[in-house]
Amino acid sequence: MDKENLSVVVHSKGDLRLEHRAVPEPGPNEVLLQMHSVGICGSDVHYWQHGRIGDFVVKEPMVLGHEASGRVIKVGSEVKHLQPGDRVAVEPGVPREMDEFFKTGRYNLSPTIFFCATPPDDGNLCRYYTHSADFCYKLPDSVSYEEGALIEPLSVGIHACRRAQVTLGSAVLICGAGPIGLVCLLVAKSMGASLVVISDLNVDRLAKAKELGADFLLQVKRGETPEEMAKRVEEHLGSQPHITIECTGVESSIQTAIYATRSGGVVVVVGMGPAMVTVPLLSAGIREVDIRGVFRYCNTWPMAIAMLASKKVNVKPLVTHRFPLEKAAEAFETTRQGLGVKVMLKCDPNDQNP
Amino acid sequence: MDKENLSVVVHSKGDLRLEHRAVPEPGPNEVLLQMHSVGICGSDVHYWQHGRIGDFVVKEPMVLGHEASGRVIKVGSEVKHLQPGDRVAVEPGVPREMDEFFKTGRYNLSPTIFFCATPPDDGNLCRYYTHSADFCYKLPDSVSYEEGALIEPLSVGIHACRRAQVTLGSAVLICGAGPIGLVCLLVAKSMGASLVVISDLNVDRLAKAKELGADFLLQVKRGETPEEMAKRVEEHLGSQPHITIECTGVESSIQTAIYATRSGGVVVVVGMGPAMVTVPLLSAGIREVDIRGVFRYCNTWPMAIAMLASKKVNVKPLVTHRFPLEKAAEAFETTRQGLGVKVMLKCDPNDQNP
Amino acid sequence: MDKENLSVVVHSKGDLRLEHRAVPEPGPNEVLLQMHSVGICGSDVHYWQHGRIGDFVVKEPMVLGHEASGRVIKVGSEVKHLQPGDRVAVEPGVPREMDEFFKTGRYNLSPTIFFCATPPDDGNLCRYYTHSADFCYKLPDSVSYEEGALIEPLSVGIHACRRAQVTLGSAVLICGAGPIGLVCLLVAKSMGASLVVISDLNVDRLAKAKELGADFLLQVKRGETPEEMAKRVEEHLGSQPHITIECTGVESSIQTAIYATRSGGVVVVVGMGPAMVTVPLLSAGIREVDIRGVFRYCNTWPMAIAMLASKKVNVKPLVTHRFPLEKAAEAFETTRQGLGVKVMLKCDPNDQNP
Amino acid sequence: MDKENLSVVVHSKGDLRLEHRAVPEPGPNEVLLQMHSVGICGSDVHYWQHGRIGDFVVKEPMVLGHEASGRVIKVGSEVKHLQPGDRVAVEPGVPREMDEFFKTGRYNLSPTIFFCATPPDDGNLCRYYTHSADFCYKLPDSVSYEEGALIEPLSVGIHACRRAQVTLGSAVLICGAGPIGLVCLLVAKSMGASLVVISDLNVDRLAKAKELGADFLLQVKRGETPEEMAKRVEEHLGSQPHITIECTGVESSIQTAIYATRSGGVVVVVGMGPAMVTVPLLSAGIREVDIRGVFRYCNTWPMAIAMLASKKVNVKPLVTHRFPLEKAAEAFETTRQGLGVKVMLKCDPNDQNP
Repeated sequence: MDKENLSVVVHSKGDLRLEHRAVPEPGPNEVLLQMHSVGICGSDVHYWQHGRIGDFVVKEPMVLGHEASGRVIKVGSEVKHLQPGDRVAVEPGVPREMDEFFKTGRYNLSPTIFFCATPPDDGNLCRYYTHSADFCYKLPDSVSYEEGALIEPLSVGIHACRRAQVTLGSAVLICGAGPIGLVCLLVAKSMGASLVVISDLNVDRLAKAKELGADFLLQVKRGETPEEMAKRVEEHLGSQPHITIECTGVESSIQTAIYATRSGGVVVVVGMGPAMVTVPLLSAGIREVDIRGVFRYCNTWPMAIAMLASKKVNVKPLVTHRFPLEKAAEAFETTRQGLGVKVMLKCDPNDQNP
Repeated sequence: MDKENLSVVVHSKGDLRLEHRAVPEPGPNEVLLQMHSVGICGSDVHYWQHGRIGDFVVKEPMVLGHEASGRVIKVGSEVKHLQPGDRVAVEPGVPREMDEFFKTGRYNLSPTIFFCATPPDDGNLCRYYTHSADFCYKLPDSVSYEEGALIEPLSVGIHACRRAQVTLGSAVLICGAGPIGLVCLLVAKSMGASLVVISDLNVDRLAKAKELGADFLLQVKRGETPEEMAKRVEEHLGSQPHITIECTGVESSIQTAIYATRSGGVVVVVGMGPAMVTVPLLSAGIREVDIRGVFRYCNTWPMAIAMLASKKVNVKPLVTHRFPLEKAAEAFETTRQGLGVKVMLKCDPNDQNP
Repeated sequence: MDKENLSVVVHSKGDLRLEHRAVPEPGPNEVLLQMHSVGICGSDVHYWQHGRIGDFVVKEPMVLGHEASGRVIKVGSEVKHLQPGDRVAVEPGVPREMDEFFKTGRYNLSPTIFFCATPPDDGNLCRYYTHSADFCYKLPDSVSYEEGALIEPLSVGIHACRRAQVTLGSAVLICGAGPIGLVCLLVAKSMGASLVVISDLNVDRLAKAKELGADFLLQVKRGETPEEMAKRVEEHLGSQPHITIECTGVESSIQTAIYATRSGGVVVVVGMGPAMVTVPLLSAGIREVDIRGVFRYCNTWPMAIAMLASKKVNVKPLVTHRFPLEKAAEAFETTRQGLGVKVMLKCDPNDQNP
Repeated sequence: MDKENLSVVVHSKGDLRLEHRAVPEPGPNEVLLQMHSVGICGSDVHYWQHGRIGDFVVKEPMVLGHEASGRVIKVGSEVKHLQPGDRVAVEPGVPREMDEFFKTGRYNLSPTIFFCATPPDDGNLCRYYTHSADFCYKLPDSVSYEEGALIEPLSVGIHACRRAQVTLGSAVLICGAGPIGLVCLLVAKSMGASLVVISDLNVDRLAKAKELGADFLLQVKRGETPEEMAKRVEEHLGSQPHITIECTGVESSIQTAIYATRSGGVVVVVGMGPAMVTVPLLSAGIREVDIRGVFRYCNTWPMAIAMLASKKVNVKPLVTHRFPLEKAAEAFETTRQGLGVKVMLKCDPNDQNP
């Protein structure tokens, strides 16, 4: 093992550095991982560009990265289900307390949860990283490291579609064809949605959605009102969608989501918008269109691995760029410019394969 | 039987008349009822005062009333489960089409549903009235006519609490101590809520809530922000409520409802407010506080009758005023002034008992 | 239109006749259909061979057939959503009363429901047939008549998988690779099951299951105990299945289903077995493995059509034999011998296409 | 603090001893409790009389007791939410691994869970006992120690009624009026059941059920068939119950439960019977009557405390006998003879109050 632990660290707004940290020792319930593939998320770029997301402020230097997979190289004294050599995907959120949320299976809502690359918790965009063994999931041989790293964004889609109760024959509208919209598309189709229409301003993103299986594409027109847009959705589908998954966070798009959804349906708000938004709550209320948010995810890794192993979901086309860890600056700049879909950093100097 | 059918008819905004209509004949699947007790709802007063509610406009004279009970005096040729002499409560909404909503048990969402006293459908504030036999429910001897009429407002509470998933040990905040807030209170307690805190501007309404079983009263203070109000709720309960049932329709109260509710909880919006409202959707989203509306109710009469028969819910204190049908003008004026809780019109000249 | 209505009629045990009946007239809410494709179900053969199924006894001659599609040739006076020329699939169960089951969306449980080819209700294995328009569903051009007829068996699979709560990543065991086991397989995969293992005594049936997408095949061995069989399932899957769908009705297979299923999982019993069966209820109970039956289905046609239209489910390989209506005797004999999977009768002499 | 820790220990079948054990030291996440009130459960008596329950065999001497409350006298280094002097109720099951069951909120199903007085895990029928602080729940002043100890049996009722989905207006049949039947009765009423009928062979137990709020009593008659018994239930209630909670484990009673329950309803099997039972599975299946077991409980303490604090459930009448810890032999003999409902052992020599 190296003595050097190259890490991508944000110090404050605009200050991103590649620096060496100590290789950590795993605690009794932890494993030490040699990181292999770590995807860059919009939130990583946001911490770099703005030094904060809402109330989460980078006060101390913080390692970025939370879409990760790696290889176990050392296990803590209490760890039973993993051993050195195991290839694992990392679930970045680890509850710290056995509170009511954890006990009832919604640990993502636990207010004291540890979460990679959310201040002040370090992420895993580095060479060596320790993590709770209970939140590292062994990958079968048929699932690659990059697929393992992509379980994190895929989990956002799983959690959103699960909260939306997508099921056999669902007609689904997805607002926004960015990385999150695309994973929602993949998951909705896997859960039995018969029709998925996806909307975006950007033609290239829509083309990617088409490639990934969208049934209808809807380019958002400047100047179109939410009601008009909702009407257009209905015309395309032949009826209103049962479910809308809003992935933009834009106020007008949230309004469209509500107007567009069928009575008795569900709007899931995934995109993070401003603190206060103006919505047609009366329209939602009298048609019993439920509005549900999502905060990250919970209990998604096992089913995601099962899906990937069975080849029922193909996430590989999401990776459009790869950089070795040493070129993190370039990788972050690529993501910042919105090029491609998912940029993957390769953390193992001896294995840069997918 | 009379040949005269005294009826309370709204002709247009501000024009409420007591007039005679023909006694109707029941169709094959209908029953003819001699009406006994009919409560006045806020919507009845609204049609009188404004001639409309949203898109529902009084274009032709319309009989008011939809909180009703009566006695069967004639049955249609196909009716099997009722016979003359049966005392029944009337569910005012009758689906006209076997559409997807009806087939899946959510007939309240059927867009073509018949509904008493929603234009252009006549209500039952009159002496004689025909209704679908399938939506008339026989009352056991132990349930009075007035209790039967009160099943309608009680149903709003049942549907709201069911949508809110109130269960054993739930801590519930109810915003607004008007008739709807009060029935939500009664139902929430019956479904196992351990703590119900209810808020209102008006001290008299809060006193009534106390009488009906509220655990905490919270007087809304002018000038208090929604966040401050939410904080006060938490202090009173010792923790945030699992569920908030918003019965005012006021924007600031909806905001309070969202801020006040515990992560993973539910806000049910019962009160009808303006078309567009500004809400802290981000706060709801990242704490997975679901926002659900209600539109009337469905499948509530049988359980309401079961509750009343078993004496598990006492709705009798809700009736604060009674008038014979002939004094409908006085009764409507009483309701308009917001005096008391529920004003009951007695439609049977030979039986004015509760 | 013909004046003759060739029909397949069972008179009593062993007495199956091809005879002419009058062409019926549609009632106000009905449509008259020219039947196109009607599949033969095991229950049709059972009525022919035994004259009864449980308490349902053929006392009067009864037209068989309930897996059907056809073309509207006349509509009743009240029918709005269909017109002559429409191609439709027929849902054979039509509730007669607005009872508690219908009102709550579980109309399949309504004790007075009309059901095609369940004594004394006639089925639709004939040239001309009238049916409630509300239970005829228009087929899009992209869905063939035979696919339309196959919605009936597919619905059994949909209802079973829905009751089983199959979802993303579910590991599912299906006991029995007959027609029902195969449709459960198709639906489970469409709803996101990652692994489906299917068991049967018969190698040919397993081969068909493989063709339709089963992940593992398990040949049932004579003399193997249910516990041993359950153990073998776990070894194949790497863990116990979340869900078992039992399609044989055989006691030992029901026992296997319970032993095999993971704690907290679900066994759905689809196969009809003897009235009394001996089961390891303690094992189910202390592991909270729920046991759920299914009775036919409800609310499946719209989602089935959506799935077929979107090409997410391919039911075409299920049809292994076709006969013109005139050769019904031969078709029934083929089914009786258990040859192939699904035998289709072609009722329109002018169009014998799929 | 004492240096002596008087404990009730079962050594093997028939060998129950009162002996001194060391006072334990709390681990970092544990608390040391001075036990106050511990109820005797049927399983405690069973281990004493038979030395085993199913696969759980008393191989080493084991402290009995798992219905407990006490006072915190020392806290581990990591414990934050409790402090010496706190009065707590003890949840006896503590998951040892973060497996799929724990992560999804069903930790009672975790196969490696620690559970008081299930071999080889010691219980808390002693003076001093250490327990995971996360599974000790602070009692408000208004809840007595004995109420705290009774949360354990109450939890069985809560879990059973929750699994049964008891709600507003439910009609419920409870088979068996022993301690578990009685807590199910209390909880069902609290969750909104409008009618509860309870059956038993024993008239005294039925009288106790009447006292606790049962609406109808049904004495089981020797020689009556399950179908006849089911018929009698329907006659008493006026219709079939939505839900049956089977608390006897007797085969004929399980059969009655299935026959008696309404189509679309639920049978919850709480009573532990023989490994194999013969049941009318076809009747359950074709009427979609679900059969669900329960294994202990999870996530019940907070809601139970909320119910007790709000005085919505009164468990006090369940305690019929009290003995000081020193008289454990007499207490066990009383329980063995089936006298009264709940026997409480008072473990604190300085405070023998309820």
